[in-house]
Amino acid sequence: MKPIAEELAKKQREISVAEFFEKNKHILGFDSTTRAILTAVKEAVDNSLDACEEANVMPEVLVEITQTDKKGVYTLKIEDNGPGIVKQQISNVFGRLLYGSRFHAIRQSRGQQGIGISAAVLYSQLTTGKPTRIISKIAEDRPAHVCNLMINTRQNMPEVVSEDITHWEKPHGTSVEMQMIGKYLRDSKQSPYEFLKNTAIVNPHARIVFKEPDGTVTTFERVAESMPKPCTDILPHPHGVEIGTVMKMLSHTSARKLGAFLQTSFCRISQRTSDEICQKAGLDSNLKPEDMGIEQISALVNAFKEVKLMAPPTDCLSPIGEILLKRALKRNSGTEIEFAASVTRAPSVYSGNPFIVEVAVAYCPSLPKDQTITIMRFANRVPLLFQQGACALTHGIEGVDWRRYGLDQRGGKGIPSGPVMMLVHVASTKVPFTSESKEAVADIPEIEQDIALALQECGRALNRHMHKNVRIAKLREKETIIKQLLPLIAQKSAHVLNRPVPSIEPVIAKIMNSILVDSRVEYIDGNRKTHKVFVDLINYTKTGHEFNLYAVVPEEAKLAEGSGATAGANGKLSWKVKMEPDERKSVIFELSGLEKDDYTEADIYFDGIESHIIDGIDPWKEEEKEEVYETVDKSESVADEISEAESGLACKANKEE
Amino acid sequence: MKPIAEELAKKQREISVAEFFEKNKHILGFDSTTRAILTAVKEAVDNSLDACEEANVMPEVLVEITQTDKKGVYTLKIEDNGPGIVKQQISNVFGRLLYGSRFHAIRQSRGQQGIGISAAVLYSQLTTGKPTRIISKIAEDRPAHVCNLMINTRQNMPEVVSEDITHWEKPHGTSVEMQMIGKYLRDSKQSPYEFLKNTAIVNPHARIVFKEPDGTVTTFERVAESMPKPCTDILPHPHGVEIGTVMKMLSHTSARKLGAFLQTSFCRISQRTSDEICQKAGLDSNLKPEDMGIEQISALVNAFKEVKLMAPPTDCLSPIGEILLKRALKRNSGTEIEFAASVTRAPSVYSGNPFIVEVAVAYCPSLPKDQTITIMRFANRVPLLFQQGACALTHGIEGVDWRRYGLDQRGGKGIPSGPVMMLVHVASTKVPFTSESKEAVADIPEIEQDIALALQECGRALNRHMHKNVRIAKLREKETIIKQLLPLIAQKSAHVLNRPVPSIEPVIAKIMNSILVDSRVEYIDGNRKTHKVFVDLINYTKTGHEFNLYAVVPEEAKLAEGSGATAGANGKLSWKVKMEPDERKSVIFELSGLEKDDYTEADIYFDGIESHIIDGIDPWKEEEKEEVYETVDKSESVADEISEAESGLACKANKEE
Repeated sequence: MKPIAEELAKKQREISVAEFFEKNKHILGFDSTTRAILTAVKEAVDNSLDACEEANVMPEVLVEITQTDKKGVYTLKIEDNGPGIVKQQISNVFGRLLYGSRFHAIRQSRGQQGIGISAAVLYSQLTTGKPTRIISKIAEDRPAHVCNLMINTRQNMPEVVSEDITHWEKPHGTSVEMQMIGKYLRDSKQSPYEFLKNTAIVNPHARIVFKEPDGTVTTFERVAESMPKPCTDILPHPHGVEIGTVMKMLSHTSARKLGAFLQTSFCRISQRTSDEICQKAGLDSNLKPEDMGIEQISALVNAFKEVKLMAPPTDCLSPIGEILLKRALKRNSGTEIEFAASVTRAPSVYSGNPFIVEVAVAYCPSLPKDQTITIMRFANRVPLLFQQGACALTHGIEGVDWRRYGLDQRGGKGIPSGPVMMLVHVASTKVPFTSESKEAVADIPEIEQDIALALQECGRALNRHMHKNVRIAKLREKETIIKQLLPLIAQKSAHVLNRPVPSIEPVIAKIMNSILVDSRVEYIDGNRKTHKVFVDLINYTKTGHEFNLYAVVPEEAKLAEGSGATAGANGKLSWKVKMEPDERKSVIFELSGLEKDDYTEADIYFDGIESHIIDGIDPWKEEEKEEVYETVDKSESVADEISEAESGLACKANKEE
Repeated sequence: MKPIAEELAKKQREISVAEFFEKNKHILGFDSTTRAILTAVKEAVDNSLDACEEANVMPEVLVEITQTDKKGVYTLKIEDNGPGIVKQQISNVFGRLLYGSRFHAIRQSRGQQGIGISAAVLYSQLTTGKPTRIISKIAEDRPAHVCNLMINTRQNMPEVVSEDITHWEKPHGTSVEMQMIGKYLRDSKQSPYEFLKNTAIVNPHARIVFKEPDGTVTTFERVAESMPKPCTDILPHPHGVEIGTVMKMLSHTSARKLGAFLQTSFCRISQRTSDEICQKAGLDSNLKPEDMGIEQISALVNAFKEVKLMAPPTDCLSPIGEILLKRALKRNSGTEIEFAASVTRAPSVYSGNPFIVEVAVAYCPSLPKDQTITIMRFANRVPLLFQQGACALTHGIEGVDWRRYGLDQRGGKGIPSGPVMMLVHVASTKVPFTSESKEAVADIPEIEQDIALALQECGRALNRHMHKNVRIAKLREKETIIKQLLPLIAQKSAHVLNRPVPSIEPVIAKIMNSILVDSRVEYIDGNRKTHKVFVDLINYTKTGHEFNLYAVVPEEAKLAEGSGATAGANGKLSWKVKMEPDERKSVIFELSGLEKDDYTEADIYFDGIESHIIDGIDPWKEEEKEEVYETVDKSESVADEISEAESGLACKANKEE
């Protein structure tokens, strides 16, 4: 009898990656007709923004969705002013899955795998049978190329249906146009509109024009006038590599000696560190890479973990920045924002991969007070619209006890309630997505911890803002009583008793018995474009007082001359204030270099005096930033690692648990 | 100036699928050291079971995990008695991703993509640099081949380190042995132990032996003595195909005419249906497939949706079955089960893909009463251990109002509490997993609805069981009062009053005034292996009564002669019972063909008499099964579709929403 295995072997064959993703299109975000349109727009816009940044061009992106005459078929066109794609590569970039330029680059970018846009092309041809049309122009003096292509899924290769040269008015750029069966929704949290609005918030240097099927045109204007800091590629960090990777690197290196291999193939390995690694691994640094056996490589990788190394360089990352984040939120979120605080953390590291966390917290009086807050999640400047509950960015928010910061939260865990928006952005050379459709970030303790710390900092500012409103209202009430009612009562009672009106000054002093501090910010337009800050002080006490007054201003701001302040680190200004009894005075300073919405509320603090004497502002607390995040495992090793990583000086090996 | 695009083009290149998954190993379930071991075991065991089923061999699987002397490195060995793999294919099957035999087959299977086991090989070499060792033997008279291989990730091709012929005592089978850095955990819900235990439950025909690193050996014995019904491949159903797929099918068909193409390429298209489709599409059925243009193909696919078609055949599916599910749960779950109910639904269909839902609900007195129930999820006989919250199988449970079935549930939604285990199994030619790591099933309304309906059926049985305990306790109390206390009271009072003891018969009759029904099941071992059911009836009323008595027995059971019952559909037995006043009688019947634990509690009902007269059992309700599931969109179309699909006669096109 013939063995069954021989029968079974006849069916065994290779599957192309295009066939695989065609059959598993839901993995790439094409799992429903509404989502398909959103995913295709997202992939094309991500590509446009990545390309513009690589070419250092301020992005101008046009997204146009129109309904064709056929039922359920839409045409999507995404056009940019990027560098374009050379003719020879157009068909590969759009017509092959797993074809791209960024797969091996270690730096922050939106796309990396070379799958996204080809998957959209695949979905388009699967649902309509139509080719995708690409126009590309790489320079003003070159012709534009137009190419209509499909994907041969059995081979994962492009099939060019037709190509030609055409006239295109743009100096350079790419346009992609495809048809697909879909369903266009606007009023959903997971719509192309929402995606583009959110994209504009975290890409303040981009200008995005959106034309919807019903003819509505929305322009998301850029709020930054310069490109973000460009990201540079870095070499792999020794703490993030596995034995198999090192084996592959050794077999491809041009270095002749182990020592040279280490120093040229990894970041943060100097001559000295290289010697230390070789010594710990018991290896000769003159060993030839090709002669190394598995046991030696294994010893090398183990030695990596025993040596203290500097954290990876962070010029591979490009955060948005606190000011731009607030500005974009105010201009493009479509929600009225009364107050916003934002924090960009110092770079940190997980498993050898550097990352930066940025968060913003905004108070929006028009949002409902009794519902959960609005959460916006971003990874490498791309909005995440799905799987909110399964994402580390959400878990970071849920892990903070928001009751401390004045928000309602059941049991001090979970998503808090209130008229608040929270934005969390993680930028990394390798965002640990939970799936290929890039919907959610995996629960990496280092990332969650950084998110929580940043949120706590914003939480304190939010609390101060909400608290200030209450406090100001109370002070106003007090003032009303003192300034208006007391004299009236004095007059009235004097009249009734037929006695002279008494002096109420001592009574007022007794009631107030404090130094009142209030502040306001005025924006002065015109040539100067400055923010003028007035801190008004009234000493209601019967004695003279001396104390320190502090203002924390954005680091980007320039302090005008004549403020009388001493400027310290981190934008901290300080004044010595001396006040006589009953004295009124104002501390005034001007800031330039900020735009209108960047600074609406001054952060004012005091110290050097008993707290109860000052009314209206908070005492300065130096240690506030050191507050510990409680829901993350606080085992010493993790804490050490993070504090060291943050110091930017050294990081220990990431221990797998 | 040279266009930037030319500079960028230099970096553009193809990425191999092995490189892609090496870098994104978390997508395949290798995201942590604990999970890596579990995932590798799972992939190997899935392959073993699939192979055994294809070769019609009762599976014997050995899983052995040992710790090597190196820190954190484990050796995994998985051995089966399957058909083996021919020598030429060993390296492809284990050394290439996306290489397999089941990708294009439309039938229920565990693996399909040809990724899983190669990904484990990849992870092994990545973390240890060591090759994987495979032994395979395809027949008793053939030698066993041993092969040590690694994967060349740049090319996604196997690299055979060494190969040889060896002696192996097995007649046929495959053994795979690999090393990996990992962490072995036993006491976790996501451990290899838990995975194998659950695998044994849904694969009652398999025998699994598990050797753990500490030397513990656990054997999960098979509880079925025959193979599950084999699954046959089916052709694609017209309701599940997209234009692009039809285009591809047309370009590869050997049919010369459209009509023949339709009838030979799809299931459920007869000559008549083919004509109807062509007519609706405005196409000539003699059209040559190669001549068809995109507009014609589009018209064809649209016509598919307008024509009524039979649901796809269901011999591509192999459910476990109600009896085996309960039996395996009782023997292999490791938890004491007092009562279990199970339901295997009729096949249903979503987007042209047939599926079957099976559920079991078990009452386990040893589980905590105040905690949420234990949920076990399965897809195509594979346990799902991750992402419980994001899975349609869980959502199906959460959508049922369990308060109606006697369980605690906050607000009638979410996971209920109580000493209960619920098992949900979905078998399909295409299980809609949410990601490539196959952790959760997507929310397909048709699947959720079927789960809910099956759970409600089990819920009613569970409720009856829990309720019966309460009712029996009450009846016992009543009996105690009547039979023991009343005579004592009568005696005592007669004695005190010095009067003759009164007759208490009329009092008893007045209190009871009903026909008491109680039932019990006895298992008779020995040669006969039968279940003997006693239904005891006592008429306490003062009049004669006639009514119908019903018992619902497993369809697999054989009724012995002499029961006096009339056997109806769906295992429903019925008796006409006539009882005189004060009469006692027993209805007795014997069932064969079941094993000891398969039948422990009889389902007894009555009708044809006023309900209050019968005590101890429920009245028969014919319409119980029609209860509507409330949390799913009840739009007419969906409801129609499902009821039609269930009837097995016709299904309408799945309309994408």
